[in-house]
Amino acid sequence: MNNKLSKLWASFKKDKDGLIPCIAQDRTTGEVLMLAYMDEESFILTNNTGFAHYHSRSRGKLWKKGETSGNVQEVSEIRVDCDMDTILLSVDQTGPACHTGNRSCFYRSIGDILKEQEQQDPKQYKTRGALK
Amino acid sequence: MNNKLSKLWASFKKDKDGLIPCIAQDRTTGEVLMLAYMDEESFILTNNTGFAHYHSRSRGKLWKKGETSGNVQEVSEIRVDCDMDTILLSVDQTGPACHTGNRSCFYRSIGDILKEQEQQDPKQYKTRGALK
Repeated sequence: MNNKLSKLWASFKKDKDGLIPCIAQDRTTGEVLMLAYMDEESFILTNNTGFAHYHSRSRGKLWKKGETSGNVQEVSEIRVDCDMDTILLSVDQTGPACHTGNRSCFYRSIGDILKEQEQQDPKQYKTRGALK
Repeated sequence: MNNKLSKLWASFKKDKDGLIPCIAQDRTTGEVLMLAYMDEESFILTNNTGFAHYHSRSRGKLWKKGETSGNVQEVSEIRVDCDMDTILLSVDQTGPACHTGNRSCFYRSIGDILKEQEQQDPKQYKTRGALK
């Protein structure tokens, strides 16, 4: 099976670092939980273990989602897009997916973030508004 | 408003090409439709027009989704993840999102693709199986 998975991985389109973006979606609610990156090792481990593994770009190493927090992702299906450069996992998420404690990493809208930035620096926004 | 959006864009974490991956999700069904990339121009146009715009990496230029096919994406919400390096659009998709005519670009599972590859080259898979 690993031969087949390696061949499959070889047919994917990787980015300049040899990685592929991977979306994790909650199997039951459809909520998009996060986006992370896979290399060949994490792709094969995800297939073989049934738990989501990624490649941490900041730490430069293999990362089993939830390995320290316990907030693992049990994978029920792995899909690939038309041009084979993005992976979509359907997962059962234990606990929150986000390190902030939110269920999903996408817990803020653009409007929320603009408000945050305005509160952090109200004068700047006032000036900018006056210049409009 | 464009000043605020440019400031917001500046606070995002871009990839080496100055782009951010952007997931489009069907507003009503929750289905993940596609992943594409945004630059500052497409991000601001998406905000200002209410229709999804991306940066085509293959053509190296701005791309309004559906500009030729008519299969546009009307955007109801734009979300950003915790570390501000991925965008999530909630969209009303006209027609199929995928250029293959499928509703979603993620129309194949890993199992489907392995079967496709086996059918294209059955001898190779037979040999590989025997070597296991």
